[in-house]
Amino acid sequence: MLAVLGILSLAAVRTTASLWPIPRSMQSGSTFLKLPSQFNVTVSVPSPPADLLDAVKELNWYLANDQLQRLVVGRGAYDAQDIESAPTLTSLMLSLEDGAEVNSISAEAVKAIDIRSEGYQLDIPADGSTATLVANSTLGLYRGLTTFSQFWYEYAGQVYMTSAPISIQDSPAYPYRGFMLDTARHYFPTTDIIRTLDAMSWVKLNMFHWHITDSQSFPLYVAEFPELAQQGAYSSEDVYTPQDIQDIITYANQKGIDVMLEIDTPGHTTSIAASHPEYVACNQASPWATYANEPPAGQLRFTDPAVVNFTTQLFGAVAKTVPGTLFSSGGDELNIPCYRDDNRTQGELNSTGLTLEEALSNFTQSTHAALIAEGKTPVVWEEMVLDHNVTLSNDTIVLVWISSANAAAVAAKNYRIVQAPSDYFYLDCGASEWIGDTPEATSWCDPFKTWQKSYTFDPLANMTDSQKSLVLGGEQLLWTEQSSPTNLDPIVWPRAASSAEVFWTGATGPDGARLNVTEALPRLHDLRFRMVQRGVGAIALQPLWCALRPHACDINS
Amino acid sequence: MLAVLGILSLAAVRTTASLWPIPRSMQSGSTFLKLPSQFNVTVSVPSPPADLLDAVKELNWYLANDQLQRLVVGRGAYDAQDIESAPTLTSLMLSLEDGAEVNSISAEAVKAIDIRSEGYQLDIPADGSTATLVANSTLGLYRGLTTFSQFWYEYAGQVYMTSAPISIQDSPAYPYRGFMLDTARHYFPTTDIIRTLDAMSWVKLNMFHWHITDSQSFPLYVAEFPELAQQGAYSSEDVYTPQDIQDIITYANQKGIDVMLEIDTPGHTTSIAASHPEYVACNQASPWATYANEPPAGQLRFTDPAVVNFTTQLFGAVAKTVPGTLFSSGGDELNIPCYRDDNRTQGELNSTGLTLEEALSNFTQSTHAALIAEGKTPVVWEEMVLDHNVTLSNDTIVLVWISSANAAAVAAKNYRIVQAPSDYFYLDCGASEWIGDTPEATSWCDPFKTWQKSYTFDPLANMTDSQKSLVLGGEQLLWTEQSSPTNLDPIVWPRAASSAEVFWTGATGPDGARLNVTEALPRLHDLRFRMVQRGVGAIALQPLWCALRPHACDINS
Repeated sequence: MLAVLGILSLAAVRTTASLWPIPRSMQSGSTFLKLPSQFNVTVSVPSPPADLLDAVKELNWYLANDQLQRLVVGRGAYDAQDIESAPTLTSLMLSLEDGAEVNSISAEAVKAIDIRSEGYQLDIPADGSTATLVANSTLGLYRGLTTFSQFWYEYAGQVYMTSAPISIQDSPAYPYRGFMLDTARHYFPTTDIIRTLDAMSWVKLNMFHWHITDSQSFPLYVAEFPELAQQGAYSSEDVYTPQDIQDIITYANQKGIDVMLEIDTPGHTTSIAASHPEYVACNQASPWATYANEPPAGQLRFTDPAVVNFTTQLFGAVAKTVPGTLFSSGGDELNIPCYRDDNRTQGELNSTGLTLEEALSNFTQSTHAALIAEGKTPVVWEEMVLDHNVTLSNDTIVLVWISSANAAAVAAKNYRIVQAPSDYFYLDCGASEWIGDTPEATSWCDPFKTWQKSYTFDPLANMTDSQKSLVLGGEQLLWTEQSSPTNLDPIVWPRAASSAEVFWTGATGPDGARLNVTEALPRLHDLRFRMVQRGVGAIALQPLWCALRPHACDINS
Repeated sequence: MLAVLGILSLAAVRTTASLWPIPRSMQSGSTFLKLPSQFNVTVSVPSPPADLLDAVKELNWYLANDQLQRLVVGRGAYDAQDIESAPTLTSLMLSLEDGAEVNSISAEAVKAIDIRSEGYQLDIPADGSTATLVANSTLGLYRGLTTFSQFWYEYAGQVYMTSAPISIQDSPAYPYRGFMLDTARHYFPTTDIIRTLDAMSWVKLNMFHWHITDSQSFPLYVAEFPELAQQGAYSSEDVYTPQDIQDIITYANQKGIDVMLEIDTPGHTTSIAASHPEYVACNQASPWATYANEPPAGQLRFTDPAVVNFTTQLFGAVAKTVPGTLFSSGGDELNIPCYRDDNRTQGELNSTGLTLEEALSNFTQSTHAALIAEGKTPVVWEEMVLDHNVTLSNDTIVLVWISSANAAAVAAKNYRIVQAPSDYFYLDCGASEWIGDTPEATSWCDPFKTWQKSYTFDPLANMTDSQKSLVLGGEQLLWTEQSSPTNLDPIVWPRAASSAEVFWTGATGPDGARLNVTEALPRLHDLRFRMVQRGVGAIALQPLWCALRPHACDINS
């Protein structure tokens, strides 16, 4: 039986170039199937939720419009004979397991991260009889539909696949699979975010970490604090209105993606000074390099009770408008000289007798209490547990970013971890320094993080067995000092799909072998071309010559 | 007088953020001017050529449609008061110097590189009286119109500028200012090339070096050799037809840009084997790394008289269809083991008694003779003069690419030079290795070449006084192993504008100071935003916060 599996998995490598992330368990064949012009998807779910029916419509849209020719020499023509003799698959039947609750995809997508159900079973017989997709939730069905949609190519108007029979049992290795976008260094119109969410859904990412504000701008319109965006956004155009935010969250949730907002505090808050200068220490102070990691300097005066109150109110006001259970309060790169040289901060410390660290802990406890009161689990950057002596609730989740080496230290403190290390996952690295008056300078996070680099990330490196369950997953991140809508798609895709597979599939593929870049490259080409067909301007990974000839451009080929 | 000039040049830095490349001689003030809804451009040229009239229409289009708000805090609103009280400039008068020949821009653009006339004088009075643009050729007028178009911002429907009076006397420091695009690793539709030509014209680049074929594909349709594209292009869609090529050249010439085609030989020719396998040695031989710098291996059997004849005919057939005077025969990265292990090549050498180098010289003399017969000056990559013992005509132009350090060796051989060094000008560097099965590998030309790096290039480094005149100029280059239409704009722009200024303005700016990145950055931001307004997706250089605050993000700010 093992030998047979071995043969099957070789076939799988050859014929299932289309799946990303690769399912955790899969058997596949080499029979071609084609679709009729009217493909029938039956939703055998009682009172099916509207977003599940929309997902079926979306599947049919992709089947009809992807028009992706297979990446082989000759493209679709290479398959012409096999297509002609292929059986026709006329229908796909969706159903839930017995006893499964029927909720909308959206409702499932925003459940607490540890109780989400994303698994599914997909069977596509080789004889044209009905394919079946079964899951324990509508979210699982949505993941299965996504897998199903990736099998199909088109040639001369005929939609077909190459690898029946298919039997897939799949579920994610990690519950948190994210992508972070910074909309404060540059503003991204809603349409760019919607397109990014689409691409995320194609690779089963389930968390949009929205770093929405920072020192450079405050594009988040908050009904209770309208002045923040009115004064702190780049312009009145560069604002996310409450309607924009609801539209984005609703769209994301329907695509199986939760949204985690981040209002980074107490650092990275210069933009708050535009409307509340009294709340911000070292506001645009010079030299900025003394007071911040990048310009402009400016941090909340968290020793001031008015600032604690303001931030707590702000967090509560925003948290109550979003359905997800995670909310990030930030907490990275706190600059100490900023407070040392701020008379008001020093005055507060003198009058209260608190240390800066004690005041920071009070501030964090108050702001996190506002999140917890709204049912949110607080999320922080690693410095909050590694560099500062802040009292946090035990279930706080920590984003590891400075270095992958720091995850072990966070785990040692028994916090749950999201892996977002700059040495693997920072999509902005490699463009060298953007600070002015620095000819030829490299940046702190050069070189460029290739998809190969991120693909080799080991989520459980340096974890003891008992710590492994602390790793919730991870995310690739786009900080936007040098990015804007003009380069969003090529700088993110397909690279951000790399960690999507690492955290969905885990350490080993369906053939039992460790994930490796050599096996992955043809599939990633396929994904990239499918993304381009769907309107996402993903960057090319190799000359087309190589993309059409799997492994011909490997180093030892 | 020097003191006054000093003050003027400080003002110039503050108020002429809009010009790129900066003129070689300029005086400017700080008076605002605005345009009426109907701006009058008078072309005082006898029988003005159609492309000059088109250029005037283009100017009016940009004036009406750029709608670029100035990059200051508050954007256009910052200027509202100054706009209101500004005099109105109602007209611009174009004329040629006494005795100047009247030719079309297109005809001027394809003159021999050493006799082109691109200079102009532009005066914009501060009182609203007629601005004047005078040149010795229509090409000079076109350059002046380009400069004129960069002064203008828009706010609340009003087009205005900030720095009258203006007096500019300008002409390029170097006659060759290029950009190279590789359309063989990836194909680029005509629309992408047209858009790129537009952007080139905005920064006064005057040479489109079109690396049109390579080992991966042969997208050039040649009437006499239709099989080359029919078999060697990626697909029947991925072909430049004779009409496409004429359309592109015509468009380029009208924008003051010459086109230098390159058919790279005898290396980089695997794609010819698709239709003529008998002409190609080590065709897709394995391991490719033994036989080529990148996959696939394959080089013309230049020892074979049939191949010499074919290549000579091919060069003649293509050269006769293009109006420019430069044509590149390539000649880079010739792989010797490919010929060592090729029985046919070794047989030819044995039967003729020639060495490989002698045969290469014969091949090159024959193919270059075909170019010269069509009135072209041959252009080659540096190996043809540094690594090989090839007889070349004295006026051959050499592209220095491997390293900027190699220019001196080429100059020592008394060849004219185009500076295209990978260590400054390769736009593709920094994305790391694209060869498969190489996790975490850096590429030969990492790191990323920032605009700052290319901007600090010294065209005359290591040249003796007598050698300096050999430097015709230079170009930035996009090799497209990892580039395609999805990332063309952001990977090229605004970086390729960096060398456009180095080779137009030369070592020193109009204030007499050495070009430096600190002065340049606000102007480059301005150019980038204008490009985006005109539909070219140039990448952001800094957070918008920095772009709106010149020098606030400098390292010591």
